[in-house]
Amino acid sequence: MRLVRYGRPGKEKPGLFDEEGRLRDLSGIIDDIDASVLGDKALRKLAKIDHKTLPLVRGNPRLGVPVKGVGKFIGIGMNYADHVAETKSTMPSEPVFFTKAISSLNGPDDAIQLPKGSKKTDWEVELGVIIGARAQYVSEEEALKHVAGYCVVNDVSERAFQFEMGSQWDKGKGCDTFGPVGPFLVTRDEIYDVQDLDLYLELNGKRMQTGNTASMIFSVAQIVSYVSRFMTLEPGDIITTGTPPGVGMGRSPQRFLKKGDQLRLGIAGLGEQQAEVVAFPK
Amino acid sequence: MRLVRYGRPGKEKPGLFDEEGRLRDLSGIIDDIDASVLGDKALRKLAKIDHKTLPLVRGNPRLGVPVKGVGKFIGIGMNYADHVAETKSTMPSEPVFFTKAISSLNGPDDAIQLPKGSKKTDWEVELGVIIGARAQYVSEEEALKHVAGYCVVNDVSERAFQFEMGSQWDKGKGCDTFGPVGPFLVTRDEIYDVQDLDLYLELNGKRMQTGNTASMIFSVAQIVSYVSRFMTLEPGDIITTGTPPGVGMGRSPQRFLKKGDQLRLGIAGLGEQQAEVVAFPK
Repeated sequence: MRLVRYGRPGKEKPGLFDEEGRLRDLSGIIDDIDASVLGDKALRKLAKIDHKTLPLVRGNPRLGVPVKGVGKFIGIGMNYADHVAETKSTMPSEPVFFTKAISSLNGPDDAIQLPKGSKKTDWEVELGVIIGARAQYVSEEEALKHVAGYCVVNDVSERAFQFEMGSQWDKGKGCDTFGPVGPFLVTRDEIYDVQDLDLYLELNGKRMQTGNTASMIFSVAQIVSYVSRFMTLEPGDIITTGTPPGVGMGRSPQRFLKKGDQLRLGIAGLGEQQAEVVAFPK
Repeated sequence: MRLVRYGRPGKEKPGLFDEEGRLRDLSGIIDDIDASVLGDKALRKLAKIDHKTLPLVRGNPRLGVPVKGVGKFIGIGMNYADHVAETKSTMPSEPVFFTKAISSLNGPDDAIQLPKGSKKTDWEVELGVIIGARAQYVSEEEALKHVAGYCVVNDVSERAFQFEMGSQWDKGKGCDTFGPVGPFLVTRDEIYDVQDLDLYLELNGKRMQTGNTASMIFSVAQIVSYVSRFMTLEPGDIITTGTPPGVGMGRSPQRFLKKGDQLRLGIAGLGEQQAEVVAFPK
């Protein structure tokens, strides 16, 4: 299933895109796409409904983050060997992780706002993992059973805030609007091999990032298992799994986001985000 | 007011300790101590009630985290000059911050659990700041108006996870039970000078940490203002403001927490935590 939340910010309703790509309303069946529907059993129940019987949604409503009640939003750094090279970093021997503030969550097509004083806001297309079942010290073999599904994430990052104002990256990762997620939560059963998904990102129509999840240093299963040793993962938590090469920081000359820039980014089977970059309103 | 949440984990009710130190039930007045009651207006309304008319709570119930719906739990590092020295770090020119996972939140007297494989779990008594009103790019002058109140926090930290497994501290800061908060949320109006509060921590009856918030490198007002430049702070968010000297890592020889250790820590006017250290259950 391709689950979504549609409507105005803070007023989203649950829905899904059916096999013909039509948006249908789920609000007669469930209250929201939250922890209560992310477990395998609840998802199976939703899948069994004849989706053609669900009301069609008219128009082209805004989409929100496809899951409500995200408690933790964890990012993995330096997880593609070619991205490690472009940032002149050393290859990690185990996953590096940091936190994106919950308040950075943004709909997939919502504007990305440059923070005040920002000169180095950068893009990062990434595979997002949405947890479906509590995970605490789970093995790599069992890890994916704790995943509800996958999504596109733009791990927007202000490089000066991240690297030039102390050692801790969270400062440049959690600004408001820096966490676009979606359009869909695509349930785990629909992804044949999560380690073979093409990713791309275009800036103003020009291809910037091209990658495949096959190039991850640490697989999704390894990441979920690893993070679950340091904190219990709860349904609705999101882990974003690192970016392939082509970020603005790694280009020569470097290129950072400016007011009016248009981003288009996506992952095969997980849909696409299209966002405009705006200045902080005066 | 000294606001609390009391009862079994996940089933806490709102309450307060009256002037005579008796626990009284607020559940007839408000649903919980959450964003809806943390603003100045709502707090004033609560303060105006004749507290003697509130039902007394019998017995000595467990206390939970004194605020529900914490969205962000931000920690400030290296904020006491003498603590910077003991950790052999360099003095920060601006605040360093990191994130404690929401899943680390723990009642003030709940057991602190050593994670599997932990050899270097350490204590840090700290002043916690609970946000009462949305704060985005607030000035230092206006910052404290966005604070609902203050609390004791133990910023429990696994030093090997924090420093020896990559560069990012979040790995050692967010383990389950690593965020005891409370006993009270003491409203801002009751604290005459937040930059003159004594802090202490004892391990098995022996004094380990002694400090005063006067020794902070960055004041509470500076911290709230600073963090609000990188993310919008929302009611219920907690910022813990750094620890004075005396942590286990800074001792010679180093001393880390072991199963059976007893911690007692507090801040003048903000109450005391008493927690036992337990091993991860097999």
